[in-house]
Amino acid sequence: MADGEPPGLPRPLVPGFRAAGVRCGIKQAGLDLALIASDAPAAAAAVFTRSTVVGAPVTVSREHVRRGRLRAIVANSGCSNVAMGARGIRDARRMASLAAAALGCRAEEVLVASTGVIGEPLPMEKIAAGVAEAASDLAPDGLADASRAIMTTDLVPKLRSVEARVGRSVVRLAGMAKGSGMIEPDMATLLSFLVTDAAVAPSFLRRLLREAADASFNRLTIDGEGSTSDTCALLANGAAGNAPLRDASSPGARAFRAALVGLCEALAKDVARDGEGATKLVTVRVAGARSAADAERAARRVANSVLVKTALFGGDANWGRILQTIGAGRVPLDLARTEVVLCGVPVFRSGAATGPEARGRAQQALTAKEVEIEVRLGRGRGACTVWTCDLSYDYVRINAEYRT
Amino acid sequence: MADGEPPGLPRPLVPGFRAAGVRCGIKQAGLDLALIASDAPAAAAAVFTRSTVVGAPVTVSREHVRRGRLRAIVANSGCSNVAMGARGIRDARRMASLAAAALGCRAEEVLVASTGVIGEPLPMEKIAAGVAEAASDLAPDGLADASRAIMTTDLVPKLRSVEARVGRSVVRLAGMAKGSGMIEPDMATLLSFLVTDAAVAPSFLRRLLREAADASFNRLTIDGEGSTSDTCALLANGAAGNAPLRDASSPGARAFRAALVGLCEALAKDVARDGEGATKLVTVRVAGARSAADAERAARRVANSVLVKTALFGGDANWGRILQTIGAGRVPLDLARTEVVLCGVPVFRSGAATGPEARGRAQQALTAKEVEIEVRLGRGRGACTVWTCDLSYDYVRINAEYRT
Repeated sequence: MADGEPPGLPRPLVPGFRAAGVRCGIKQAGLDLALIASDAPAAAAAVFTRSTVVGAPVTVSREHVRRGRLRAIVANSGCSNVAMGARGIRDARRMASLAAAALGCRAEEVLVASTGVIGEPLPMEKIAAGVAEAASDLAPDGLADASRAIMTTDLVPKLRSVEARVGRSVVRLAGMAKGSGMIEPDMATLLSFLVTDAAVAPSFLRRLLREAADASFNRLTIDGEGSTSDTCALLANGAAGNAPLRDASSPGARAFRAALVGLCEALAKDVARDGEGATKLVTVRVAGARSAADAERAARRVANSVLVKTALFGGDANWGRILQTIGAGRVPLDLARTEVVLCGVPVFRSGAATGPEARGRAQQALTAKEVEIEVRLGRGRGACTVWTCDLSYDYVRINAEYRT
Repeated sequence: MADGEPPGLPRPLVPGFRAAGVRCGIKQAGLDLALIASDAPAAAAAVFTRSTVVGAPVTVSREHVRRGRLRAIVANSGCSNVAMGARGIRDARRMASLAAAALGCRAEEVLVASTGVIGEPLPMEKIAAGVAEAASDLAPDGLADASRAIMTTDLVPKLRSVEARVGRSVVRLAGMAKGSGMIEPDMATLLSFLVTDAAVAPSFLRRLLREAADASFNRLTIDGEGSTSDTCALLANGAAGNAPLRDASSPGARAFRAALVGLCEALAKDVARDGEGATKLVTVRVAGARSAADAERAARRVANSVLVKTALFGGDANWGRILQTIGAGRVPLDLARTEVVLCGVPVFRSGAATGPEARGRAQQALTAKEVEIEVRLGRGRGACTVWTCDLSYDYVRINAEYRT
């Protein structure tokens, strides 16, 4: 898994999974319906948005994943099926049923997801035709097309894969994600579908996914907005034949966990890198906070600050805005012991700027495509990292012109 | 006081106050040093930023206002004197001393404020020359120049005045404010200086100012950022000769309170109208929340949502983003009873969009310079109003190009 590079289009093969992405005509152009199917029933886990306004697909998928077994995921882009009342729920159930009928499983074994504009009905004829076509297109190397079919304002598809040694088996994991606006903690308008041929007990799978999402997608913020539709699902079909992983006690389970966290973290960074209008991937690291919660609050303040994000777009080594937004978030800090380091260059230390020479070097370093903000608050040992991007004219253009 | 109009440059006279605004050369152009003086010692109150990172002038002014008596306010724009350590404190004290020497009062009777870039030392020679010039320029109609001298990225000065009947006296109030970025609750990079010739006991004045700020400046958000320098001060010199107001029991005290709240509210809306890059003044009213706190959280979510603000800039009647951001803030709502009304046009009601015709009318109405978002959550009686503006290309330009 190459980190730091925008993903190309690998065609990862995960034994026992087939996928397809087709165009059914919901979006103005491009693929807009994805189907991912496991040949055998798979252990499954999913995490969802914690918004108080959720799309019908979230409501339906929460029911379907409850038993911890799924056969397939069906998703569309272009229409989110949000705020459609009883009709929305019916449509989401029907979308699952259509996939189930095509695959020969029960509707309850299908997770359904939709992303796109809010408040429009799902065009069910198009969905039906798309599901039928996708089912006939299913192929072992179809994840790449599926990853394209879930894109909305994303500029590039995000697909990655990784392997791990579990006992004598090598297990494979592959995952896709889409962003790219309305992205904050708690899953964002983020869809991420992950598959593995490892055998994992459903209860352990749930724990692993929660941990991995907390360490990755929930550390990601594009614009401080959370979505109605965020869904991250993981299917483990056991085709690798390993002894099922039940807890973190074995080296194999720990290797699997590390691979899963790495996969999710890489996808989260891909989403940040492709944030709406983004010109830079920004990593914000806060240390020295009184507590982990304080560190997280500070890091999120910095990552969501439109003043910081516009300064980054302008390539300005503006430590003043960084301190200002942490202060405004009422995060306790000791200014005399606070440090701000931009791309490795200390620009503020011991209560004062380090001078124009350092600032010049930081300014130069900020022209890179991947930049890092480190803040040490001098109050304790709390630390937290989040990923974000800068805020450019294009963010405004995209969001002033994108109509519901 | 004409509301709904950008302020011109009235030259309000408040008996017993003189003011001046001069150029001392901190900013690249324009007036940058303001002095406001009361002929006699005045009762005084002030509220400040609640940030954990505050400018030296805030630290010094907190001390000076503690006794409830002030003679003058001295303020500069272009340099905020923030994050300058012990030197910053010395410079802020010296700025107060310079004004005191010129006016013949004690340094502790002078409130000092600075706004502008963070992390640069106050140019004390320029400040000294500016204070001397301002002291010699002091004039009864000098508030207009003073209101220009505190501007940073503001496009227009903000100065308003109002009268109230207190017993047999007519008392006058005048106030100025500056924005225009880094503006959120808890005072924002907002400086507001208010003067009145009413006689008011200091303890009551403090209470009145806190109430008025909570109902106005603390209901204002441009970009969700809070500043290190926010200061709102009120001087009451008693020149009107009324019996000093000591509590809210008299009709005169209530008239004075209403006038003060109205003045602050008008200034807060002036700041929103002139927010960085703003093309619209946006009033967000939330009702039907479970509690006032829920209503405030929902209103602030909407007002700070970059997705909502860019939609408003684009003139898009995007109720989906409004509901999404309230939901993402985990504000309890009953979607089936939720209503979204844009400029008087219901666009979402009983869990569904009201249709393309209403949407078209709302879209049309959103082209106005002053727009209103009303949201009713169907859960209770909690209500809250906040003011904000849209987010345009110019916000990005201003903040990507403005260097510390």
